[in-house]
Amino acid sequence: MRAPFITFEGGDGVGKSTQVKALASHLQEYGVPVLTTREPGGSPAGDKLRTLLVTGDVGAWTPRAEALLMYAARSENLTHTINPARARGEIVLCDRFADSTMAYQGVAGALGPEFVSSLYDLIVGDDGPDLTIVLDLGEAGALERAKQRNAKKRDATLQKEERLEGRFEEKGLAYQKAVRAAFLQLADEEPARICVIDASGSAAVVAERVRMAVMPLIEIWTAQTNSGDSQDG
Amino acid sequence: MRAPFITFEGGDGVGKSTQVKALASHLQEYGVPVLTTREPGGSPAGDKLRTLLVTGDVGAWTPRAEALLMYAARSENLTHTINPARARGEIVLCDRFADSTMAYQGVAGALGPEFVSSLYDLIVGDDGPDLTIVLDLGEAGALERAKQRNAKKRDATLQKEERLEGRFEEKGLAYQKAVRAAFLQLADEEPARICVIDASGSAAVVAERVRMAVMPLIEIWTAQTNSGDSQDG
Repeated sequence: MRAPFITFEGGDGVGKSTQVKALASHLQEYGVPVLTTREPGGSPAGDKLRTLLVTGDVGAWTPRAEALLMYAARSENLTHTINPARARGEIVLCDRFADSTMAYQGVAGALGPEFVSSLYDLIVGDDGPDLTIVLDLGEAGALERAKQRNAKKRDATLQKEERLEGRFEEKGLAYQKAVRAAFLQLADEEPARICVIDASGSAAVVAERVRMAVMPLIEIWTAQTNSGDSQDG
Repeated sequence: MRAPFITFEGGDGVGKSTQVKALASHLQEYGVPVLTTREPGGSPAGDKLRTLLVTGDVGAWTPRAEALLMYAARSENLTHTINPARARGEIVLCDRFADSTMAYQGVAGALGPEFVSSLYDLIVGDDGPDLTIVLDLGEAGALERAKQRNAKKRDATLQKEERLEGRFEEKGLAYQKAVRAAFLQLADEEPARICVIDASGSAAVVAERVRMAVMPLIEIWTAQTNSGDSQDG
């Protein structure tokens, strides 16, 4: 049985990267192997596409081409990183995955959910996440945190990668609201897979909420794996 | 009524670029506006993807990611170049299009025709070519010409772009045979759209064969356009 695949989703600035790191540390202490990745990116080819996607002016790619590039990166990430890790028994944590394409391009963007859904079926199929954590800050909270983060970036000596990420954060309040609504709608449609978590409060408090949502799945998998091992032995 | 869209297809080294140029000149002399493009490429974004696709080792991209990138370039080419030109009344000639993805990746390659067909429906839909010329040299002829061309490239001071194109020509005899068979199979399946033309003989002789296949479509379109104009006026 392959290891669980868990994705982290949510609007810009809700703390996804921080929570991926916190959960990875916790799982390592718990004694299970973990691999973390992110999208777009996660493979050498995917990183090239990430650079293509996030450089240049907002809107330089048509929405369809952008979604195809996202899914090309996703296909590479599944083939070279995610699926092999799960087959080796490593729990995979991914910072953004297909729900981001659906929320940003499909529902909040111009592309429409059907197009994104067709790409999902073609490329991801049965290789999608077992559990998805949507970090939610509420409308006002998310925008405030994204603004703070961008201001900090402008002040500090900017890392190139951080500036690039800012491109996805330039589209303003109405778009951020629509993205948040899209994630909540996806969670409504797939309650068995998607768990919405309140991302307000300290990182440690949010990390505890994430662990509460994730650990039952890990414990079931660990138990099944151990019982499988003893049957094999 | 939008202007005709004509694509040129066939294996490596059958003379597509030469015939696109020859037909474009002929149509200009005939007095109709023409735009020529090529794939992958044809738009600034598509050219970036072309470079991504043709650099690096053969097989660096998974077949699925490669097809997604091809279709991302195709989507950009349709949106920014092909569709606007046809709407302006310019006949579009394209050096390779969707049949190449189907023949190389879908039928001769590892990807399977269903995957490529699904992408076609999603991205191209009703914006596909009215007429497709498949240039055919026979098995032995095509390989011989591709070899000559590669040898010439190795001898001369190589243009970077030409070296890049060589990447698609490295896969050998069996693959070239399979690609040729795939193009002929596609022509069998869509006889109303795809016309197979004997590409042996001088460029001038082949150009005459191409004109015989293309001009009826151009004449019908010109007549319809003129009658539409006079009705408007």
